[in-house]
Order: sequence, then structure tokens, then C-alpha cells
Amino acid sequence: MKTNRRDFFKVTGAVGAGIAAGGLTSCSQPQAEPSAMQFIKDAAVNNNPQQFNMCGYAAPKLDKVRVGFVGIGDRGSGAVKRMTYIEGVEITALCDIRQAAVDGAQKILSDAGLPKAKEFVGDENEFKKLCDSGLCDLVYTATPWEWHVPVGLAAMEGGAHAALEVSAAKTMDECWQMVETSERTKKHCVILENCCYDFFELLTLNMVRQGVFGDLIHGEGAYIHDLDYWHFNKPQDEKMTDGAYTKMWRLYENQRKANVYPTHGLGPICQAMNINRGDKMDYLTAMISDDFTLKNRIEEKAKEDPFFEKFIGMDMRGNMDMQMIRTNKGRTILIQHDVSSPRPYSRIHMLSGTKCFAQKWPLQHIAFGHDVVDEAGMKELREKYEPEIIKRVGEMAKQVGGHGGMDFIMDWRLIDCLRNGLPVDMDVYDAAAWSSITPLSEWSIANGSAPIEVPDFTRGAWKTNKPVELTLAGGGTTKVRNLSNANAEGQLDV
Amino acid sequence: MKTNRRDFFKVTGAVGAGIAAGGLTSCSQPQAEPSAMQFIKDAAVNNNPQQFNMCGYAAPKLDKVRVGFVGIGDRGSGAVKRMTYIEGVEITALCDIRQAAVDGAQKILSDAGLPKAKEFVGDENEFKKLCDSGLCDLVYTATPWEWHVPVGLAAMEGGAHAALEVSAAKTMDECWQMVETSERTKKHCVILENCCYDFFELLTLNMVRQGVFGDLIHGEGAYIHDLDYWHFNKPQDEKMTDGAYTKMWRLYENQRKANVYPTHGLGPICQAMNINRGDKMDYLTAMISDDFTLKNRIEEKAKEDPFFEKFIGMDMRGNMDMQMIRTNKGRTILIQHDVSSPRPYSRIHMLSGTKCFAQKWPLQHIAFGHDVVDEAGMKELREKYEPEIIKRVGEMAKQVGGHGGMDFIMDWRLIDCLRNGLPVDMDVYDAAAWSSITPLSEWSIANGSAPIEVPDFTRGAWKTNKPVELTLAGGGTTKVRNLSNANAEGQLDV
Repeated sequence: MKTNRRDFFKVTGAVGAGIAAGGLTSCSQPQAEPSAMQFIKDAAVNNNPQQFNMCGYAAPKLDKVRVGFVGIGDRGSGAVKRMTYIEGVEITALCDIRQAAVDGAQKILSDAGLPKAKEFVGDENEFKKLCDSGLCDLVYTATPWEWHVPVGLAAMEGGAHAALEVSAAKTMDECWQMVETSERTKKHCVILENCCYDFFELLTLNMVRQGVFGDLIHGEGAYIHDLDYWHFNKPQDEKMTDGAYTKMWRLYENQRKANVYPTHGLGPICQAMNINRGDKMDYLTAMISDDFTLKNRIEEKAKEDPFFEKFIGMDMRGNMDMQMIRTNKGRTILIQHDVSSPRPYSRIHMLSGTKCFAQKWPLQHIAFGHDVVDEAGMKELREKYEPEIIKRVGEMAKQVGGHGGMDFIMDWRLIDCLRNGLPVDMDVYDAAAWSSITPLSEWSIANGSAPIEVPDFTRGAWKTNKPVELTLAGGGTTKVRNLSNANAEGQLDV
Repeated sequence: MKTNRRDFFKVTGAVGAGIAAGGLTSCSQPQAEPSAMQFIKDAAVNNNPQQFNMCGYAAPKLDKVRVGFVGIGDRGSGAVKRMTYIEGVEITALCDIRQAAVDGAQKILSDAGLPKAKEFVGDENEFKKLCDSGLCDLVYTATPWEWHVPVGLAAMEGGAHAALEVSAAKTMDECWQMVETSERTKKHCVILENCCYDFFELLTLNMVRQGVFGDLIHGEGAYIHDLDYWHFNKPQDEKMTDGAYTKMWRLYENQRKANVYPTHGLGPICQAMNINRGDKMDYLTAMISDDFTLKNRIEEKAKEDPFFEKFIGMDMRGNMDMQMIRTNKGRTILIQHDVSSPRPYSRIHMLSGTKCFAQKWPLQHIAFGHDVVDEAGMKELREKYEPEIIKRVGEMAKQVGGHGGMDFIMDWRLIDCLRNGLPVDMDVYDAAAWSSITPLSEWSIANGSAPIEVPDFTRGAWKTNKPVELTLAGGGTTKVRNLSNANAEGQLDV
């Protein structure tokens, strides 16, 4: 992959000078150099032209979709179960480092009256065999974050579409690898951003499409979720054999001074603003607070459980980080991330337009000017603007559960698109742009909140790419089965 | 005033290099230079040491407080009326460019059975005569923004304390002029930030003081208020003689690409975080959207009223601007400002701590961890943590009105501090730091969201200055009178 530092750092204003200056001894800054250099290495610009535009690409129809799963922990096992309700899906392969995890998935299949899947169990390279097996049209990955892209690349190289849990990529290089591989192989690389399929998010997206908001001016999204329970207590996978704790990979990830989980908040805002499809993110600046809780919690926890002694002294990320993003059309986006403050859950989901305003957390409301729509008015809006996809599978999704139904709507939509040869809602450019907030915020934070340009992963195609449509045009034919076995487990916190 | 550019721009990371680079031909940036240069001129760092620490300074007791008012429009006439209810106040002087405005204020005095005040009416320099008259212990200024500091400086030079409506200052030079003049004359320069005295803001501040929040991690404040009515329709002063419109100075101010009104949201957060009193704002970065509404509204309005033709073609500010601020103790603050989007009113007022969370808009709630306190719990919290000042004058304030009472609590507290020789709650360093967000955000926005250091107006004294106390210790003796004449007019939007 060609790289060109100067091209990348077309950052506006004095900061452009700052980053140019980074290379000049005359005005280099000790504290900036290391991280800046590391980022330059990391954020390598891709000068190769777009090989093929995967945005709006309709892959050949698949009557049956043979699905392989890599990573069958909490999230993966839930996905296996949801897929058993979708007609046209054949679960052909299961991969995990733990036999117990695969056994659990096989039981889900037999309980659903479905045939056993081929097993790929053992060391961390087993996923490659699954990807090369020719057994899968779609490889669905729910591993720890570091394995998303390696599995996704192997899937596409092996001739399958890739579906990656969030956040899809951890580094800028991984973002470009996804894009180049998807374009070369003409295989989709889908980011599994379930929050794009939540009910209020879909309602407001449809209202935007119908012109109710006028022009969008500003949007806000967040992942504010006190994960203390997940970080310190939860046996993240009851099928683990090494006692109550997994490797606690997610606690380890909290050493990174960045927004390590940007997509839940950003995804729905980008869809509403047509990011990569008429608009693009131009640049961002990021800031993080100090850590006021994690270090103390680790020391406290280590007293009662030696397992946590290994975390003592680690330099944990601050509690709150924020990114301000400016788009090419002059809109602003605010993204927040805090998983270690004692606060109520929030993804904010705010859309502020020239005609209408909506916000989901802490109070779900829609307003026209100063006036907040009352219950009766909300009912009317829902009846008038409920998107086709909700009418089609919304109620079934609630029965299946999975964060209140949005997980199932996402899975069903993906399968329905693949079976009907429709473009996917969240393509590789979305996966790359949404995930890139992690390395970009890391660089900005390491450089005193200096602004940094967001790469254009579409290489100009954003100007002509068409917006995501919520209509099922040509789709919606995929049936849902065996709902009698469903037991909605959906807690609402994602 | 001595200035030193290099000292000012101790901005972190690559940006430090960027701004250092600003002076170097080798890495100067065309688009950065003009605004950066202008800001350097504007933001002149003051290398003079602190002459006298006005933070915590108790000025000599005043049994009677002789008050003069400069600027008697909507806001000023309300202040005159509120002051008639406060014992120990003598309204001795009234100044406005419009005789009608002064006549209105005289009527307020006679209606309250108070003696006429001396009048200073006519050209824009009449305020100087008022300040030199020796008639006032306090000059209360509610003019358009551009006159706040000129009047405040003249007041202090004339031997009176100055009280300035928000935002106190428009430029960095004005901020330093307030500080230097207050220190030299030992006269208070108070910023009249009424939102610091609203009921929920005072409750949460007291909870912070009592340790309920643990350490504060993050705070948010805003001025989100669709001023379309004020910008385009409201006869801002019925006493005007030139027809339905004033000079529409506030619409003119919307040409400035900055947060021109930062203090309503920032003030209460700074008090909770002890900014200038144990912590300080280190640096900020700012971003603004394009304008999606004002230009169109002006053209629309001009069609029906030629008065607005003069605004056609003006380069109006974007709708939404945001600032991320990092404090010396590693806390983060988010400030937002939008007066031209059709949205419900909000100042957010969010405080996120290690033990407790509170937010006022769009839903007033307090939470401990995931759990939001219910009505009964809120009642208990209010009973337990209602601050002394609310017990003392809260109910009376509601009768007097003025934004639901907070305006009166602010005025009463100021007078009570002056009469009892107590330090003021909002001193000149607060006035300067809170107001400085305007020029700082303007510079950051003009330089592609580059971060910029917030000057330490206390010159190091923040490390030892004591936090604002809500107790009335030694005060609370000032009586409220003639409430029978009160008719609470307070709409809640500030």
C-alpha cells in the first residue's frame, strides 16, 4: 500500500503548519513527535485510485446464504441464535478457540432442528481454514476487536462476504485494508452496526429522507455506558473453562487514549447525513479527560481477587472522550464515549435540522421549533413515518429480541439484501470511515486536540454515491421462521 | 499593557509547533496567518504580575448601596424594578441614550415610593458623567455588549464597583483591562451571570460542595435558544421612538464566527469545578457549522420589511458552535451555542462525577450510576441539599420573578455581599475567564479548530484561591420589601 505523509495532513489553518512543522527540526515539539510519527506510520494515505465502487454495488443474488461464524462468545452465540430464525440461511461453519463455545452453538442449531455445522476449533488461526473451506457465502465475525479485520480479510480473500462486529477496525491501516480488499474481491465488508436499526433511529432516518427535518445542521451520538459490570464482574462467557473471567480483553482496550468504540453513536448520524453518499467527514478534533475511576476500581478489585493484580499500574484511558467533526457540507457532529463513569446509559442520537429536531437520550422527543411533540403527535408521526422495514419485521424482531429487536432487524436486512441482490446498507466505506474515528481521535488526543483530516475512503465517489434507502425495493421477501421458539432476552443496553 | 506573543501560545502538542510555526515563513499557512495574527494582537498576554488578588477580597461594608444603571432597555428596566425590592439599595442614577427609557425607570421608582434618580441622558458618553458623579457605589450595566467594558472601566475608575451583564467582555484585551483595573482600584468587577443562581444549578452546586458527586469528571453547558423572535420580530424596547425595531444589535453580533454568548452554560459548570479557585481552564478547541437559516430568514424578512435589507449579503455565523475545554485537573467541559436553529431551549447543565450525575435539559434528573432518582428521592435530595440562599430568598424571588426568580436571587446576593463586606461570588477573574471563550473560540474556528490556551487571569492565584461558598456566613441580613407590588413576569427562557 502506497503511503504519502504530506497528502494525509491537509489539515486546515495553523494546524496544517503544525503538522508540516512536525517534520521540521526548527519547530518540532518533543511531546508531539513520537505519537505524531507513530500516527503518520499508522494513518498511511492510500494513493491508489478506487479499484471498484462497492457503494451501491449489488452482489449476485444468493438463494441460500451459507453463514460461518467466527467468535462465539456472548455476542456470537446470540447471532447464531438469531440467524436460526431467518429463512434461506444455512449455518455451515462454526469457529472459536474454545470447544465449549462451539458445542453451545451446535446445541442452538439442533434445538432449532437445523443440521450440525462443520467445526473449526483450537488455535487462533483456525478461522483461516474456515475462510478457505468454501463452505461460506458470509463470514460473521464476533471476536475481540483485534481479530475483526484479519478474519474479514481472510473471508473476502476466500470468496465470502464479511460481516464484522463493531468497531470494525482498530487502525487506519486496517481501514484501508478492508477497503482495498473489498474493492478487489468485490465482496461486501459490512459493519454490524445494530444501532442503525433501532426503532427511533430508523423513524428519524425515514423522517430525514421524507424531508421533515429540512437540511440537517448538527448531529450528536455517543456510547455512554458504565461497563463496570462487564469490566470487572461478568463471566463474559459461561462456556469459559478458566474460571469466572475471560481474558478481559475489553478492559485491556481501555489503555488506549482514544474513542475505541465510536460507531454506535456515529453510525445512525452518518446515515442521516449521507456521509460517503453526498457528504463526507472533513476533519475532527478530540479531547479526553483524565481517569478518575478505573485505576481505583482495579486496585479495589485486586484486593478481593488476585486476578486483577496484573492491571495495577496500567495507564488506563480517561473517562470521557469527545470528538467534534465537521462535514464537507458544513454540518457538525459531536461524538462522546465514556464507559467508566457512573452515569445512565446514552447514545444521545440527536438530529438538529432547519425544520425539525429529535433526540433519544436522556428523553426521547421530537420538536418543531420550541414545541415538543406530545404523545398524540408522536403517535401520528410514527404512523406516518414508520419505515417499511419496521412494518415488515419490527414486531417479529421484538419477539426474537437482541437489544430490543434491532439486532434481528440488522441480521434479517443483511440476509435479505444478499438473497435479493441488493446493495448493503453499511458498506466497506462506512466500516472504514466510522472505525477510523479511533486512530484519528488517538492522534488528536496525543497532539493536544490538534484537528486531523478524516480520509476519504471513497476517493471522491462520495460526491455521486446514492443515499441508503430504507425501502425494501426488490427485497423484503425473506421469511422469518420458528418464532414459537423465540424468547426475547433483549436488555436495552448495547 | 505589556504583550508577549510567544508566552501566550504555549499550546500543547503539534499545535504548539503549529503556532510557533505561524511566525516562520518556512511553515506558515496562508489561510491561518491573517486571523492568527489578528488574534495574537487581540489576545495580548499580560506579563504584569497580579497587583492585588480580587478573588476572595472583601470590600469595605456599605450600609446603603447607591446604585446607578447604565442601559435601561428590556434587561435594564427589569433590573431597576428588582432592585426596588431590596432594602439598603438607593437607586441614585439612571443613564440611557433615550429619554423615554429613563422616564420608564423613573416611573418604576415612583411606583415603588422611591425618590427620583439623577438622569444622564443623551449621547453615548453620558455614562462617563454618571461614573464620575460620585453618586454611585455600584454601576449596573445592561447595555449592548460593546459597551459593557467601557462602562465597567469608567465605573471602577470613578470609585464604584461594576456589575456587567453577560457576556461581560467581547475581546481578550477587554478581559485584561477588566482584571488590571479591578486589581488596581480594588473595586469589584462582577459578571451578572444569573444562571449561576437558578434553582437546580444551586442545588447541584451545593451537592458538589457536600461531596455527593465525588470528583467531577466532565461538565456540559450551553446556550441553545432559538432567538428568531428576538432577532426579527420583537420591539426589544417598547420605549423606542424609531418604530418597532431597535438597532437589532444582537442580530449584527451574529456576524461573528465565535461563541458570542458562552457564560450562561459555562458559569455554573466553572463554579462547580472551582475554576480559578483550585482548578483552571487549560485549553480549548472550537468548531462551528455553516449557517443554514439566518441568511434565508433575512432575505425572507426583507421581502416583508425593507428594514432588513441592510442585512442581506452579510456573512452570518453558523448555527451551531461548540467548544471542548480541558482543565488543569484533567476534567473536560463541553460548551455549545446555537441561537438560530429551531430547537427547544437548553443550557444542558450537566455534571458528571465519580459518584453522582446530574443533567437539567432536556430532562431534569439526578442519577447514581445507572439509576435515575425518582420523584420521592428528588424531594429528599432537595430537602437535604437546598442551599441556604434558596431557603433565605428563594420563595420571595419567585414572587419577584425575572426568569423564574434567579435574576432576583443574583441581585439580592450581590447587594447582600456588598452590604456585609463579603467577597462576591463571581469576581473579575470569572468575568474574564468566562468571557474569554468568545475570542478564543473565534481564533480556534478561524484556524481550523486548532487548540488554544486559555489565559490564566489569576496569574497563579487559582492554586490557592478558595471556592465560592454558598453559605451566607456573615450575610443574609438584607431584607426584601414591598413584595405586595411584585408581579412575577418571569418567562423561563433566558
